[in-house]
This record gives sequence, structure tokens and C-alpha cells, in this order.
Amino acid sequence: MVEAIHLNTIWVVLAAAMVLFMEGGFSLLEAGLVRTKNAVNVTMKIFVDLTIGALAFWAIGFGLMFGSDAGGLIGTSLFFAPQQIDLGLDLPAAAYVLFQLGFAVACISIVSGAVAERMNFKAYVIVAGLIALLLYPISGHWAWNADGWLAQLGMKDFAGSAVIHLLGGSAAFVIAWILGPRQGRYKDGSVNVFAPSNIPLASAGVFVLWFGWFGFNAGSTLNAGDGMLSSIALNTMLGAAAGGASAMLFTMFRFGKTDPSMVMNGALSGLVAITAGCAFVNQWQSIVIGLVAGLIVIWATLFIDRLKVDDPVGAVAVHGFNGAFGTIAVGLFDAQGGLFTTGDASLLAAQAIGALAIIAWGFAGGAAIAYVAKVTVGLRATAEEEEEGLDMAYHGIPAYNELDRFSETTKALYDFEATTGVSVKQPDPFAAKASG
Amino acid sequence: MVEAIHLNTIWVVLAAAMVLFMEGGFSLLEAGLVRTKNAVNVTMKIFVDLTIGALAFWAIGFGLMFGSDAGGLIGTSLFFAPQQIDLGLDLPAAAYVLFQLGFAVACISIVSGAVAERMNFKAYVIVAGLIALLLYPISGHWAWNADGWLAQLGMKDFAGSAVIHLLGGSAAFVIAWILGPRQGRYKDGSVNVFAPSNIPLASAGVFVLWFGWFGFNAGSTLNAGDGMLSSIALNTMLGAAAGGASAMLFTMFRFGKTDPSMVMNGALSGLVAITAGCAFVNQWQSIVIGLVAGLIVIWATLFIDRLKVDDPVGAVAVHGFNGAFGTIAVGLFDAQGGLFTTGDASLLAAQAIGALAIIAWGFAGGAAIAYVAKVTVGLRATAEEEEEGLDMAYHGIPAYNELDRFSETTKALYDFEATTGVSVKQPDPFAAKASG
Amino acid sequence: MVEAIHLNTIWVVLAAAMVLFMEGGFSLLEAGLVRTKNAVNVTMKIFVDLTIGALAFWAIGFGLMFGSDAGGLIGTSLFFAPQQIDLGLDLPAAAYVLFQLGFAVACISIVSGAVAERMNFKAYVIVAGLIALLLYPISGHWAWNADGWLAQLGMKDFAGSAVIHLLGGSAAFVIAWILGPRQGRYKDGSVNVFAPSNIPLASAGVFVLWFGWFGFNAGSTLNAGDGMLSSIALNTMLGAAAGGASAMLFTMFRFGKTDPSMVMNGALSGLVAITAGCAFVNQWQSIVIGLVAGLIVIWATLFIDRLKVDDPVGAVAVHGFNGAFGTIAVGLFDAQGGLFTTGDASLLAAQAIGALAIIAWGFAGGAAIAYVAKVTVGLRATAEEEEEGLDMAYHGIPAYNELDRFSETTKALYDFEATTGVSVKQPDPFAAKASG
Repeated sequence: MVEAIHLNTIWVVLAAAMVLFMEGGFSLLEAGLVRTKNAVNVTMKIFVDLTIGALAFWAIGFGLMFGSDAGGLIGTSLFFAPQQIDLGLDLPAAAYVLFQLGFAVACISIVSGAVAERMNFKAYVIVAGLIALLLYPISGHWAWNADGWLAQLGMKDFAGSAVIHLLGGSAAFVIAWILGPRQGRYKDGSVNVFAPSNIPLASAGVFVLWFGWFGFNAGSTLNAGDGMLSSIALNTMLGAAAGGASAMLFTMFRFGKTDPSMVMNGALSGLVAITAGCAFVNQWQSIVIGLVAGLIVIWATLFIDRLKVDDPVGAVAVHGFNGAFGTIAVGLFDAQGGLFTTGDASLLAAQAIGALAIIAWGFAGGAAIAYVAKVTVGLRATAEEEEEGLDMAYHGIPAYNELDRFSETTKALYDFEATTGVSVKQPDPFAAKASG
Repeated sequence: MVEAIHLNTIWVVLAAAMVLFMEGGFSLLEAGLVRTKNAVNVTMKIFVDLTIGALAFWAIGFGLMFGSDAGGLIGTSLFFAPQQIDLGLDLPAAAYVLFQLGFAVACISIVSGAVAERMNFKAYVIVAGLIALLLYPISGHWAWNADGWLAQLGMKDFAGSAVIHLLGGSAAFVIAWILGPRQGRYKDGSVNVFAPSNIPLASAGVFVLWFGWFGFNAGSTLNAGDGMLSSIALNTMLGAAAGGASAMLFTMFRFGKTDPSMVMNGALSGLVAITAGCAFVNQWQSIVIGLVAGLIVIWATLFIDRLKVDDPVGAVAVHGFNGAFGTIAVGLFDAQGGLFTTGDASLLAAQAIGALAIIAWGFAGGAAIAYVAKVTVGLRATAEEEEEGLDMAYHGIPAYNELDRFSETTKALYDFEATTGVSVKQPDPFAAKASG
Repeated sequence: MVEAIHLNTIWVVLAAAMVLFMEGGFSLLEAGLVRTKNAVNVTMKIFVDLTIGALAFWAIGFGLMFGSDAGGLIGTSLFFAPQQIDLGLDLPAAAYVLFQLGFAVACISIVSGAVAERMNFKAYVIVAGLIALLLYPISGHWAWNADGWLAQLGMKDFAGSAVIHLLGGSAAFVIAWILGPRQGRYKDGSVNVFAPSNIPLASAGVFVLWFGWFGFNAGSTLNAGDGMLSSIALNTMLGAAAGGASAMLFTMFRFGKTDPSMVMNGALSGLVAITAGCAFVNQWQSIVIGLVAGLIVIWATLFIDRLKVDDPVGAVAVHGFNGAFGTIAVGLFDAQGGLFTTGDASLLAAQAIGALAIIAWGFAGGAAIAYVAKVTVGLRATAEEEEEGLDMAYHGIPAYNELDRFSETTKALYDFEATTGVSVKQPDPFAAKASG
């Protein structure tokens, strides 16, 4: 005979592995959406999240988020992940810690995209560490620790539209704003579009994220016996499908071209928006939420650009705006207390207060973190580093080093070089290391 | 104590996530096998499958397939995925719907490959929608609804060699035939090979498909307590290994070169062929089925080209021919009723009738769907769009936009441009949108 | 009510699927780390592992490893994977065979990386087959068959730091040494660095491997009711995070650039090193093991180059050196018998003997296998094949065939060709086949 704890253990461990695999999705998505000269750098930032970010959350963040409550504001125990934790779950502590690690790392990775292509790499290490150490766990405590003030207020956020996505999106917005836009992004009052460098790679990232999201949302049951588990998974799928569909159809008919970035971000927006409510709404409502999310992301992308805040991958539009929308949507559609379903506005009020509190915390905390990075190591790459690309500047190697593949082409270019004196060789990626 | 429904729920939800992740595999495989100028377009078509296709199946297709039977031909209830369905399974309805959604989407994606590089994108939206809405669920009803006429006849198709792969392959064949070959593909009586653009990407797709196939086949138990479950998974592995092995060894010794496309399609063919019988045959038989499948795909690829039906990724050879072979193989090897195992030919007859019925339906329905697309939006891209590539024509962006990475090379080219007046700049991917 | 065997079945089948998916990780990692002209070839070698290697292990290797013991040295039954095996596990035989297949294939793939870019493809087929048939299962029998002499000695290797990684790394070292370095790798006493061709692809491989490793380590419980299961998964994560962190910080501060190859190999080294002890150590110890592993890989990479043994992807440093370290670390940190935890050195002695025995077997067996390949088909590609790249030589196709994407650029080059007479066309990938 099998006990529930054993079933729950493999369920949550598998879900956690899927959530952690989402980092591969973030890496592929960002590497595909930025310019080639920064593709290594965004990948290395995901490694920062998975290494330094994960260890910081394990050491301190987890305790601040899930430790004994002080004043509804912060946790005060469970630091350095003790092996015995009484969480009132039929689940070993290690499975819970692993799953929560995946969430913390995802929250950091949201920020990584918005600051791509111009942040000092050491500053990013500090930013990622502080998000995992302080920013994410504190507001996470408010909403997800039973004694947190937002939880006490009745705010509902099943798998983290607010706790993870809206917080990450808010911090991403303010840090990207402080950091300033990429060189040449806004000039003469118009937006200079830098085309994504690798669409197949970016879309592979979306498929990995979509796959991992089933672990993200359905895994948040933390209990394989939860009667809503498969509804959650189906709602997740329907939200994503609807988000991609509305972005696809809108760009197809409005712009005459089906825009790949928008379709990808539309599907992700559906996923973000359904994350808070996947356990509280029905299939039809999931589709409505997804359809709206796919339109919000298009509007929000243009809106953010109008503010001249430069977000190279659309992280704020996807995670910030749709994190907020998903949080509010619970107040509208929740089966027990939604405004549209029950006529009662009190849950909606709690959701709105929760969203505003998390936005405010994300803005204030994100600004403070940016300030710390600025006064210690400097927030921004130099103009020369940015021009050269962060890959060569911080990692000494280009993303793609494939001149050898065009053997004949290369030969022609070298001949061209010999004739004209213009160098066509790539910079030596290891020159720095050899002399280091 | 754990109830079976809870174990089944996480099993089927995880398997469904793996099946849906196969869309990432299809996308990577197709983007790698087509020419670069169409790599975005095939990716966007996979998004059509996952968004519009999934919603169409959820709304109508599921009911036609699994609703109350009318005359053995069609389902008449369960539209718009009701939350309470009595399927006689120890499984929540939502888990079942999600798993079946993954199958429907996979069936569409088979077609997407065969029509690559020259179909009007809006036509594809119609084609994908109609496959999910009508084509796939109706023949699916015949074989997989207990009251369907093929099920009544005794046809066995465990995880869909016929229901999914043969149907998809048949429709793919006829639509590709109606659509006509890519420009320059067949001229002066010879086949002009367009080399795959990105082999590492295509192979990554195969690995994702292979991974997802464990969910596809073993998940089809819909019951974690099924005593055959692990045999199914092992047979799946052995079929794939054998399919890849025979294609590899054949091309190595016959052509002198181990052909990557054939090896990849050989492994996939082993997977397709073992899909019908994975629960009914033993390990040795799985290997035999795989070995044969890996040879069939090579012969079929050449045969289809001789018919001048242009299938850029080999979808008809993999899914059509080996879907048929896998269906027939059950009639030969089935432990209870196979011709070779029991000497009784009645199962083989049922399998043959089933395969023929599904081929006929795929041809007729596929032709009808192509006709609908033709008279509404036009089936084929214009000659100019095809020449330019569907990426720029329909999505306004190239797959790879990496000129910036060859900074010095680019400089040389720009200097060349300045000297000669020949433009070396890429087309502006956002020109269309800016003026849209 | 659910029986344990059903829970264990889905657990092990899912874990096995994750382990087999790691082959996709190996393929992406190697294709990204080698030069472009050999990226198809490394991918095809992974297909050799998954097809011919898997079938060889299924037929013979499994029996040698897990069959009835003879003298502590070798198994003598269970050939051709019988369906009824009494392994004393509450698990169907097929699930066990599938999981072990994944391990055998992973062991081969370790070798594939070290011999990249210059081995005769047919020789690799022989090498891969013999590893699966004999090399891996025999030493695997010693440590993992309860009657094997290392198991009897008390050696502990939970998920295979020694059995899989150290063996693979040792064989990789000796075969790479016999094979000799790539042309131009060591000249005039200095190491000529060949830059990785595709960092985003390589990093995607790491994320896939990381994901699969949860199946690799936690799946090794073979029992979902194992009380250590979630600790194993968490320790795996912490080891990986720590390995990546130490490699990242070391290269950042020592070289001034955060080296992507080292960060990726650092994370993998943490995974390799925690594999033996993940069930026997605590979270702190996992982090210490990971931190050390991330430094070992950097030192070992430089050390191996000083020996002029050419390992293009760092397989020996990652799997060999850190496999040995992980094995020894159990002797230091094991909760029941570690030197540091109990003051008793007897486990450490058993671990050291085990590591030495496996290294000796890997060296001797690897050399014998290389000899067999040498005298039959020849071990090394010709100088011309190596210069041209193994992709064209053995597979008749380049990894990336994307000239069409730079339509205008290409036009400029063709004009250049017309002017200068220097050909800029790529070689025809199908010329060989057409004449084959």
C-alpha cells in the first residue's frame, strides 16, 4: 500500500525538475531575442540565477519567505534550509525546498531579460543575489506564508501571477528604467527596433517554458490527491493556447504579418495570466483570460516603449502586465468570490491591494537593488563594451563562431582582405584569457 | 492511503505535458530540415497547431471523437469539453481532455511538415483548424470510441499509429500533392535536393520527440496500474533504437555516408511503427518492427519523390508509411491474435481494413480541406513570396538575423557595397509593421 | 488502493525517459562545443549510442552486469533481456531494463565527446558497441551487482559517479590519447584553442542534462517510497548550483572574463561529483562537493592539455576527474561511514580501491577497444577528412546550410566571385550520395 507522502514526493520532485528546466527556456528565449553579440551574456546570466541565485535563496530567502512570521511582514526561521520543517504538508521538506528554489530562480530570470544587452555582468550578479536573498522572499512571505498580511487579507494567488511574475516584472521595469535604454534604441523620437537574432532558438525556449509550466501550476498543488490537479493543468493549456491565438490573429489582421515575437509572448502571457487563477476558474474563463492576456502584451509592449523604458525581450509586458492582470482576474472570475461569478467585490479588492503592494515593493526594492549595484561595481557596461557586445566584453567569446563553416566563402573573404587590407577575421575569443 | 485516481491523474497529466512538449520537437525538426528562409514560418505553424488547433479540438473535435456514438461514425455529445464526463476510466475528465488535446495537436503537426515552404499561411490556419475540428476526430471516433465501427470490427491501435500518424500522413500526402512541389524541386525529370538548413536543430527536435513519445505511448494506458506500462515504454525505446540503427547502417553501407536526415527519420519511423503495437508485442518483435520501419522510410522517401509529391521533411514517409506498417504489424505480431503468433488472419484483416479506411478518409478529407482553403484564402503562396521565403512574406522577419556577429566580416561587406554599389544589407524585417 | 509496484513503475519509467533525454543534452552540448565542421558528426555519434549502443546493452550488456554472478567478476544470465527477472525490487523488469539502458547509453556518450573531431566514424560504431557490450557492464557488475567484488568490499556509488562517469571518463582519456590530438592542436609547445562554435546550443545541452539528472539520481532509488528521494533531488540541485558558482566566480576573478565553457562544465562537474553521494550526504556537504568539483574541472582541463591529450569538450575533466572525486567524497562525507563524519577510514579505503579498479579497467579496456577498432576499420579519420570536417566526410552535409538566408550578402559574394573568379559556393552536400 502506498502512502500519500510517497505519491506527493515524486509528484513535487518531478514538477520541481520541470520548473527548473524552465531556466533552459528562459535562456533559449532570451538568447534568441537579443542581438547575437549579447547571446552568450544572457545565457550566462541564467547560470547566475541557477547557481548564485539558487544558493542565496536556499541560505536566506527560503527562511524569510516561509519561516515563522513576524508582524505579517517577514519570516524569521528556517534559514539554511533545515531538513526538518513542519509545513503542514504531507510532503518531505526537501521536496518543498526544491520546488520553491525553482520559483525563486524563475523570478530572477524575469528580470534578466529586461536588463539584457547593457548591464555590467558583476552588477547582474549582485542584482540576482539580492532578488533571491531579499526582494522575492519578502513579498512572497506576505502572500504565501499563511500569516503574511496579504494572505490574511484574503488575497489568492495560486501559483504566483503576483508573487513571482508581477514582482519580477515590476523589479524588471524599474531596473531597466534606471539602467537606461540600449544605445541607439530611442533616437529622434522614434523607436529603433533591434530585430531578434534567432527565432527558432527563441521559440524552442517558449516550448520549454510551456512544458515546464505544467509543473509550475499543477505542481503548486503540492499534493497529488488535490481534486483540482488536472483542471489546473488543462486550464494552463487553454490559457496559453488562447493567449497565443489572440496575439496571432491580432497581428495577422492588424499588421498584415503574424509577428513571431508577439505570438511567443502572447502564449507566455496566457500562461502568466492563468497562473494565479488556474485552480479557481473554469475552462471557459481560462480561455477568456488567455485571449485578453494575448492582447494586453501587444498593447503593453508598445506602451513601455512609449515610456522609453527599454525591455529587449518584453519581460515587463509579459510578466508584469499580465501578472497584474492574472491577479485581478481571480477577483473577477473566482468560483467562490469573483465579482462576475458572485457579485461580491471584496475578493477583487484584496487582489487589487495585493497587486498594488507587490508593484510598490517591486519598484522600491528594485530601485534599492539597482542602487546597491551602482555604488559597488557600477550598473552599466561601458559604451565600448556595449558597442562591442557583452559576449566579448565579459566572456571573451562570441555566441556563434562558425566562420569555418563557410569554407569557400571564408576563403573569398580572406582573399578580399588580402586585396583590400580590410580585416575580415573575427576577434580572437581567447586573447583575453591567454593574457589573463 | 492513495486512491488509484490520484496516481492516474499525475501519470496522465505528466504524460500529456510530454506529448504537448513534442510540439517543440516538431518545430525544431522542421525548422532544421527546411531552408532557412522558411524556418520562422514552420515554427509559427506549430504555434497555429498549439493555439487555434488546440482550441478547435477542445470545442468541437473532442465531442465528435469521444461523444455518444451515432451509427459507429461520429460522436454527438461532450462538446466544449464538459467537466463531467463518464469515460469509464479512473481518471478525471480534465486529465483525459488534456491528453487527447496533445494527440490532436500532434496529428496536425504531421501535416505541417509536408506542406512546408510554399503554403499560404492563412490557408494553413484553415487547414489546421479543420483537421482538429473534423478530420482527425471523425476517424478517431471510428477506432477509439468503443462504439466506433473500426473498434467494433476488432481493430487494435494502442497509441495511434493509425488514428494519429497514418491519418496525418495520408492527409499530408494529398494536401502536399494538391499544393504542388516547391519551385525548382523537380526539373528536367530529376529531383533537386534542397539541403536541410540546420542539422543540430533538427536533431534536437528528434530528441524532444523521442522523449515525449514515452508519454505518448506509455501514457496511453491512461492507468498507472496497467501491468503493461513499463513494457510499453521499453518497446517504444527498442523500436526507436532499431529504426535508427537500420537507417544508419543502410545509408552507411549503401551510400557510403551515414545520412543524418535518414537516421533521424529512421528513429522516428521506429517510434511511429511501434505506436500501434507497443502494448501487444514483445521486445524482440519491437526490434523487428523498428528495423523494418527504418528501411521503409528510406524506400518511401524515394518513392514519394518519384510521384513528384514534394514533402520537405519526410512526414509522409515517416508518419504515413510507417503508420500503416505499424498498424499492419499488430495484425502480424499481436500476442493474442497476430498471424505469425497465432496463425489466425482475422485480426490482420481488421487491421488492413482499418488502415485502408483511414487512408481513404485522410485522402478524401484532406482533399476537401485543401479545397476549402483554396476557395477562401488561396492555398499557395505567390511565386514571389515563395522565392523571397515565407518568413519575410508572412512574418516580416528572418529566422537568423546575425549579421552583427560577424562584425569585421560585415564591415568588409559594407566596404564592398560602398565600392561596388551592390547592397549587402538584409531587408528590414520591420518595414512592414512600421507602415502597417 | 494503489500498490507500491504501480507507483514505482511510473516513477522509474519517467526517470528513465529523463535519463534517455540526456542524450539530447549530450548532442547539443557537443555540437555547440566542437567546430562547426564536425557538429553533425558528434550528433550522429549520439544516435549511434542511442541505437546500436542501446541494442548491444539490451542484448548482452545487461546480462553481464546484472545476471547471476561468477566470481564477483561477471554476470552469466539474463541475456536478451528476459521479461521475468527477479531483482528483489518492487518493480517490473521492463522498467528496470529501460532505466539501465539509459545509464549505459550515457556512459558511451561521455566517450563520444573526448574523441570528437578526428575519429573514423566506423571506428566509433565499434567503440560504442563494445563499451555497451562489455566495458561498461563488467565494471558495473563489480560495483552494482550485489555479488560483485567491489560491492562486497563495501564500495558505495549511489547513482554512478564511478560506475558510469569515472569509467566513461577513464576510457575517454585513454582512447583520446591513443587517437592523438586534432591537427594543429598542440604546436610549438603551446595549446591552440579551437573556440566552441555555438554557445547557446551548448548551454541548451547543459539545461537538458541538468533536467535529466533529476531522473538519473533520484530515479536511482528505483523506489518511490524511498525516504531519501527528495533529499537526493535537492542535493543534486545544490551540487550543480555550487559547481557552476565556483567555476563562474573563479574564472570571473582569475581570468577577468566569466568563461562559458567552464561555467557549463562546472555545473556538470557538480552534478557528476554529487552522483555517488547524493543519497548519503547532507545539503551542506552537497554544496561543498559541488564547489570543489567546479574548481577541479578547471584545473583538470589545463592538466589534461599539459599531457597533450586532446579532449575537445572537456569530458575527461568533467566525468573522469569529478567522477573520481565524487566517489572519494562518499568516503569522506558519508553519514554512516565517512572519514570526516565518523573518523573511520575503512569506507574511504573501499572507495579508493573502487575508483582505482574502475580507472584501471577503463584504461585497459578502453585501450583494447581502441586496438580492435584500429585493426579492423582504422581508428582515425584521414588528414584530408579531418581538414574538410567530419560532417562532409562521413555524412555528406554541413551542420548549417544557411547561405540562402543572407540573400543580399550572398548576392554580393556571388558578384565578388564573378569578378575575381574565387568560388564562394558551398560544396554540394549531396554530390556523394548522388554518385553513391
